[in-house]
Amino acid sequence: MDESAADPYVDLYARRTAGMTASDVRALFAVASRPEVVSLAGGMPFVQAIPTEHMLAVVTKVMTEQKDLALQYGGGVGQLTLRERLAALLLEEGIPATAEQIVITAGGQQALDVIGKIFIDPGDLIAVEAPSYVGALSAFSAYEPSWLQVPLDDEGMIVDVLDEALRSGQRPKFIYTIPNFHNPAGVTLSYTRRQQLVALAAEFGIPVIEDDPYRKLRFDAEPIPAMRSLDPDNVIYLSSLSKVVAAGLRIGYVVADGPVLQRFLAAKEAADLCPSNLTQLIAQEYLSDERWRQNLQTLVNIYRLRRDTCEAALEEFFPADARWTHPSGGFYSWVTLPAHFDTSRMLAEAVERLVAYVPGSAFYADGRGRNQLRLAYCYPPEERVREGVRRLGELLADEELARAKVTSA
Amino acid sequence: MDESAADPYVDLYARRTAGMTASDVRALFAVASRPEVVSLAGGMPFVQAIPTEHMLAVVTKVMTEQKDLALQYGGGVGQLTLRERLAALLLEEGIPATAEQIVITAGGQQALDVIGKIFIDPGDLIAVEAPSYVGALSAFSAYEPSWLQVPLDDEGMIVDVLDEALRSGQRPKFIYTIPNFHNPAGVTLSYTRRQQLVALAAEFGIPVIEDDPYRKLRFDAEPIPAMRSLDPDNVIYLSSLSKVVAAGLRIGYVVADGPVLQRFLAAKEAADLCPSNLTQLIAQEYLSDERWRQNLQTLVNIYRLRRDTCEAALEEFFPADARWTHPSGGFYSWVTLPAHFDTSRMLAEAVERLVAYVPGSAFYADGRGRNQLRLAYCYPPEERVREGVRRLGELLADEELARAKVTSA
Repeated sequence: MDESAADPYVDLYARRTAGMTASDVRALFAVASRPEVVSLAGGMPFVQAIPTEHMLAVVTKVMTEQKDLALQYGGGVGQLTLRERLAALLLEEGIPATAEQIVITAGGQQALDVIGKIFIDPGDLIAVEAPSYVGALSAFSAYEPSWLQVPLDDEGMIVDVLDEALRSGQRPKFIYTIPNFHNPAGVTLSYTRRQQLVALAAEFGIPVIEDDPYRKLRFDAEPIPAMRSLDPDNVIYLSSLSKVVAAGLRIGYVVADGPVLQRFLAAKEAADLCPSNLTQLIAQEYLSDERWRQNLQTLVNIYRLRRDTCEAALEEFFPADARWTHPSGGFYSWVTLPAHFDTSRMLAEAVERLVAYVPGSAFYADGRGRNQLRLAYCYPPEERVREGVRRLGELLADEELARAKVTSA
Repeated sequence: MDESAADPYVDLYARRTAGMTASDVRALFAVASRPEVVSLAGGMPFVQAIPTEHMLAVVTKVMTEQKDLALQYGGGVGQLTLRERLAALLLEEGIPATAEQIVITAGGQQALDVIGKIFIDPGDLIAVEAPSYVGALSAFSAYEPSWLQVPLDDEGMIVDVLDEALRSGQRPKFIYTIPNFHNPAGVTLSYTRRQQLVALAAEFGIPVIEDDPYRKLRFDAEPIPAMRSLDPDNVIYLSSLSKVVAAGLRIGYVVADGPVLQRFLAAKEAADLCPSNLTQLIAQEYLSDERWRQNLQTLVNIYRLRRDTCEAALEEFFPADARWTHPSGGFYSWVTLPAHFDTSRMLAEAVERLVAYVPGSAFYADGRGRNQLRLAYCYPPEERVREGVRRLGELLADEELARAKVTSA
């Protein structure tokens, strides 16, 4: 697309488009596709680990036995068989759910867009973690909210800060949180904090949006109860098959109760009518054959080794005054550099040196986090993860050297 | 879902949700699934006509040769190979397009949602036909527009009415039209009107949104040039594979130029990140094997016969003072009954008598059209189309009889 051409409609666009521009993350997807670049940028599942013959058997079965259904429009709510299977899998995680409480979405991202659409009027306050998932920030931004940014530490959202904000009279429409293996921060909300958060949210009548796509990607941690299981009446639970089955299916889901689910469904149908029957039937068939658990275990083992490699390389190559989180699952390490680093400015030079990451400022609603960065260790093989971190470490050392020269000059 | 439960969040919803309720059309999809009901309601493609072995060969090839790509995230813009193929097919229709001018969407519906999102601020005027596609009305409604409703006749939108509105100072953000085999009205915008419309839109600097999913479903008409080919600079062209390949793939596309396409893409990525690589690769593979044209011709022949059957049955069974349009392609006949009929009220009785349709009022932004109804002849076999129209005709006769009794009493 030619971005330089004059725009004849410049005076016709809605106000909400003002902040909609090409994101850092999007530009990086293009960069990441060059094979010589070690991309620690995009959170891409390592789908290479899913055996071709397994997936081939699944699509063959669907197309042979259910072609007419697969190729047709479906209901906006999603296929009943898939919703029943997801409900059963949620129960295995201690999360009570029935098929009637589940609506299928176009990936986890659509659920975020629809949540924004049904709750946010321009100017409404919403509570998000700082940092938070860049895709959630852009989905919600389209509805022009104001932001209550709640900081994180190693136990996840610092609920005391939220508590103080609510008691001082701030009233967000909802509280959005990623409790497990946070994107981008890699941390997990502790059990104590979860109890504190659901109690606080219930006291003020504010729904918790629990976004939990990484839950099953646990490396060495015991599972912690989902907030939806602690307070089903006030938690809207979001998840996705993108990380545990395949992102290319574009299957996410929301778990909620009747009234809010009705609004959610009406808004979702206006956005895209219905999810793909074909990919839903493939997902349902895949999840009904117990081999999918072996595939998932293979993936978890791969991600654990890459996490270990990433952490060892950070120890070896990063400056002594850098800090990073220790993810016990999921895709991401979150690095905080000394305050003088600017990871947005550094990115072009990093790509020159054939390594990519996402600058920290992408994950805040207000452009904070310039000395932070997200490393996704999930996709490149171990030796590439190590090489990518080495290249970044070298860049950081060169930056320090250049700075020392300027300071001493 | 339990719709009767009290809603704890009733005070938290955004204003735009006020009009979002279960639509007539949605309720009918549930009804239509009962096999004893002849559904003339939903515009479902007759995918039974696509050979299983053909689709099986397509999905086998994709999963064997491109599994890792099919299961992965893709770019928001869509796969280049598919966009190139679509550009080539558009050229066959005389519509100039390059891959760079095309963005893939989640069905045609998502394009409508994103168009609404980038153009409509609350209260903004938009021009639509009256009647218009119910899904477009619900997509746009979420952005709280006001409506300039332009009536149709047998040559499509009456552009003179729009002309007068613009010259009297009304300024819609865009003009939305379905030029070929209109949904629901079945009519086609004449060449003269197309020229008039693009000239008028250009004069006032207002983009035309040309929604054209039925173009290739021509029964007995010569193709009329698309408005995008008459004025590429001021027409945003939307189409879909739902009617010519398979609705279950959820593949639509928009054809536009650089600046507006950038806004469109940013808004679309915020809504669902990216379309399914898997269904895109399937579509691309399907459209690359010339057998798809035979399948399409088979479908067109089937739809033509069903249209003929529907018209003959209307002649035979409907009251003499009813009128209906004569579609030269597509899925729909649009029936206007004498003013005293109320098709919304009649629907429950129709379903009792095992026939379903969509009441006319669903297709107007202001609840007009109570004596109108849409018949979709595309999906049931011919004898069922005839039987459905017969049941409806019987209902209309009984209504007339009951009315005559009341009047004479």
